Amino acid sequence: MPGGRSIVLVGMPGAGKSAIGRRLAAKLGLPFRDADTEIELAAGLPITEIFARYGEPHFRDGEKRVIARLLSGGPIVLATGGGAFADARTRAAIRRSGALSVWLRCPLPVLLRRVAGREHRPMFLNADPAEVLERLMRTRHPFYAEADLVIPCSDESPEATTRRVQEAVAAWQPPLRLPVQLSERSYEVVIGEGLLARAGALLAPVLPARRVAIVTDETVGPLHLPALRQGLAEAGFAIAAECTVPPGEASKQLPVVQRLLEEMLGAGVDRRTAILALGGGVVGDLAGFAAAIALRGLPFVQLPTTLLAQVDSSVGGKTGVNLPLGKNLVGAFHQPRIVLADTGTLATLPVRELRAGYAEVAKHGLLSGEALWHWCEAEGEALVGGDPAALAHAVLESCRLKAAVVAADEREESPEGGRALLNLGHTFGHALEAECGYGGELLHGEAVAVGLGLAAALSARLGECSQELPGRVISHLAACGLPARLRDLGREFSAAALLGRMRKDKKARDGALRFVLLRGPGEAFTAGDVSPALVEALLRDEGCAS
Amino acid sequence: MPGGRSIVLVGMPGAGKSAIGRRLAAKLGLPFRDADTEIELAAGLPITEIFARYGEPHFRDGEKRVIARLLSGGPIVLATGGGAFADARTRAAIRRSGALSVWLRCPLPVLLRRVAGREHRPMFLNADPAEVLERLMRTRHPFYAEADLVIPCSDESPEATTRRVQEAVAAWQPPLRLPVQLSERSYEVVIGEGLLARAGALLAPVLPARRVAIVTDETVGPLHLPALRQGLAEAGFAIAAECTVPPGEASKQLPVVQRLLEEMLGAGVDRRTAILALGGGVVGDLAGFAAAIALRGLPFVQLPTTLLAQVDSSVGGKTGVNLPLGKNLVGAFHQPRIVLADTGTLATLPVRELRAGYAEVAKHGLLSGEALWHWCEAEGEALVGGDPAALAHAVLESCRLKAAVVAADEREESPEGGRALLNLGHTFGHALEAECGYGGELLHGEAVAVGLGLAAALSARLGECSQELPGRVISHLAACGLPARLRDLGREFSAAALLGRMRKDKKARDGALRFVLLRGPGEAFTAGDVSPALVEALLRDEGCAS
Repeated sequence: MPGGRSIVLVGMPGAGKSAIGRRLAAKLGLPFRDADTEIELAAGLPITEIFARYGEPHFRDGEKRVIARLLSGGPIVLATGGGAFADARTRAAIRRSGALSVWLRCPLPVLLRRVAGREHRPMFLNADPAEVLERLMRTRHPFYAEADLVIPCSDESPEATTRRVQEAVAAWQPPLRLPVQLSERSYEVVIGEGLLARAGALLAPVLPARRVAIVTDETVGPLHLPALRQGLAEAGFAIAAECTVPPGEASKQLPVVQRLLEEMLGAGVDRRTAILALGGGVVGDLAGFAAAIALRGLPFVQLPTTLLAQVDSSVGGKTGVNLPLGKNLVGAFHQPRIVLADTGTLATLPVRELRAGYAEVAKHGLLSGEALWHWCEAEGEALVGGDPAALAHAVLESCRLKAAVVAADEREESPEGGRALLNLGHTFGHALEAECGYGGELLHGEAVAVGLGLAAALSARLGECSQELPGRVISHLAACGLPARLRDLGREFSAAALLGRMRKDKKARDGALRFVLLRGPGEAFTAGDVSPALVEALLRDEGCAS
Repeated sequence: MPGGRSIVLVGMPGAGKSAIGRRLAAKLGLPFRDADTEIELAAGLPITEIFARYGEPHFRDGEKRVIARLLSGGPIVLATGGGAFADARTRAAIRRSGALSVWLRCPLPVLLRRVAGREHRPMFLNADPAEVLERLMRTRHPFYAEADLVIPCSDESPEATTRRVQEAVAAWQPPLRLPVQLSERSYEVVIGEGLLARAGALLAPVLPARRVAIVTDETVGPLHLPALRQGLAEAGFAIAAECTVPPGEASKQLPVVQRLLEEMLGAGVDRRTAILALGGGVVGDLAGFAAAIALRGLPFVQLPTTLLAQVDSSVGGKTGVNLPLGKNLVGAFHQPRIVLADTGTLATLPVRELRAGYAEVAKHGLLSGEALWHWCEAEGEALVGGDPAALAHAVLESCRLKAAVVAADEREESPEGGRALLNLGHTFGHALEAECGYGGELLHGEAVAVGLGLAAALSARLGECSQELPGRVISHLAACGLPARLRDLGREFSAAALLGRMRKDKKARDGALRFVLLRGPGEAFTAGDVSPALVEALLRDEGCAS
């Protein structure tokens, strides 16, 4: 059992919470408690009497307090009343206590057989038990769905169910949660396998209402919408609209935003409806921007399904679209309420996209320091081969780095360092992307890979880092199947054209070139005084025409 | 002289700061001080020596400290060195001290004659004095322009100039400044006549750079752009772009935003360029939204030229555009850095627009309390007749009320009261506007006027306010030439259609009608439980078809 946690059993009357709870406690050597018994003890009254005398709100108040008290001591196994976990404040108290909540999910016929003989209970008085149970299931199941573990139950013996619960508890891996600390609204990046199928349970605690609109693209939708729909439905979420855009950079434009807004608002999206971005960087930027400006700002959730989006674009709150004049010229800072990085979605990613996303991981390695950079050198090739453990680690460490940088400089206002360091390799990269157009000839991550090689080479020429670093960077990226030098791109570039692009970069100031340079892994800095002649010489030595 | 203020004379060498300063001090019975003399006293060195030994930055530091010290005591007349007011920190210190700064603005030939004989000064050594002075004028005049008073000087006697300075100082009225206190970025609403012609001087202290893009419409541009251009040029501002849109609600749409963004960014607008909205509510909403999303947020300034914009829409940071589905469905909260409400621009306003703007003033009267509401009843007719004093008072008091409400509830998140109270009369008003289309048949303010009458009538029917209040509200609005009852609009409305519109209002929750009701002037509250039947009965009694 995960170290010292209590286990809280939730579910309908007749689900076996007490029967399973007692057996589980005995097997685990933990005390067993029944919340209803404890409430009656504390109140000195039977529950029916508390209900009759003081009403349900009063009872739920006391129930929450008793459960919080029981969970504040050493680990126990706790069976709760059927309505406990349907109460938002009780759910929150259980979550806060660190206990593991387990829903014993029983089909109606099983419940009906088990409650036979309890018809004297007040809840069944003068009513058809099947109708009562069905109504309760409809209202309560969406809340039960927020339990950490869901155990489908049947008519098997209590021993058999207990064994299955015990195994599931032992195997349980909580999704990793990384806080992004921001002044106005902090949020978590949740990382793990299968999160889309649990989306409703994970989103419910951080959204104002169980109502969403989903934005996705034609590639991602068919792959991952079914899991997301099911995950939302389980927690009783309504989907006001599902909006699909064509995949690719061309969707990042204002007319597409207008169409999305009309679709969403026409479908009844209101101020309490959250916008969910299911897809890669394009979908995240586009849906996030639509969320930022719809009704002057709606709650927003990132559900990144590409490596690039999971390690980079989904964290930090930058949203926006392009103008014919340039990329990301229009946008807003709009932080998500939560990011669910379902690493299971990476298995469906084409290898070229996986590699391109890896370029940002390598960038984070160079920014973070020797530890992560060495990990990249050791595990990068396994990662681009699809190794799930390597992928999960890369997402976690990338988000950790990015969250720290963003927390320190949310709106990129720091004059030196800060968020600007995340542009390592990007001054070159953006220029290369612009030269190639945005039609897919050169992916953003591929441009960044070549940019990392060039940034390291420039740093070495300026005497800032060792002469070995560029070679290390380039050979690692090449080993991961990424283009790492200009010549790998198989087309000719003009040094003058690239310099012109770099001068117009959004981060350039008064036309002066700005680069992020390296003294070594973990030692990046911004430089606004690099000589254009030096950059031109580098580009020409790397094979550019003049 | 304005109560106990010091007077600081600034200007070029030869402008007569000491000669005029001595005479002015004698006439006002104040001590005279010369900053350069005081600096030499404090340092025990001649200024040429301080420059030679320690350099200019060191001298400017000391100069700032000495000037701040001189201004921290009782009122004096202070003559400053020519470079003092060109230093941003010294200007800020003078502003903070509350002193009145006076620029003695001399043409070059006058200066040249006066500095004749001072060619031994270090500044003229081995140089042509005309060239030196011309260069200094070019760089310093934009800073001198930030002085509170500008006195054009000529070859007249020092006595004559002194007399003119004394008169100007005595007549000087500072523009009214109203702070809007917000968590993230507080700003001021400046109210007064002729502010556009002083725009550069007023904007320079609150903007990151002296570079702007102006958005205006085809009606307002020809009337007020010349004054604004001149006011900006005097303080050395560059105008990167002037963008003009057609007047009217139809310009509030995303394709127009896209065109504005392309124009501005194509003209080189960068992160330090401020967007200026010169016009009414449409221009303010549109330009503010463009500023909010260009490069993820540019500094923004409101220069409202209509009564509606000065008393309402320019304060509070709401920006946005319309969708075919409804008004203001897309937008952002983006607070301006400053609002300059030039009440002189109201003189060019068509009387219908003046009256429409007055509806929001009357609304503020009802929200604020007996004092402002009685003032409205007493002065409203003079105001819509164009009385400048009444207009200035209305702008001031409206901004005061709105600033307080916005400061308490910046993002309209307060569940009851708060910003929502500003919607008094607007539930009815928005429905009427939507029924009439947005082509100009019914102006927003006219719809609000009828809405105020209906809100008062509804409050009376619910027994919330006295039975006399609706009559008072309606007869006052009618006396000011506004439609005050449905029948004044000269067309038939359907009660069902209006109710349908009200149910879809952005503020409606789950389809329930929401109104702001009155118990009396100064006693407004939000109500979410008004019976639709009661509203329908009111509308029908007011002449609606069913």
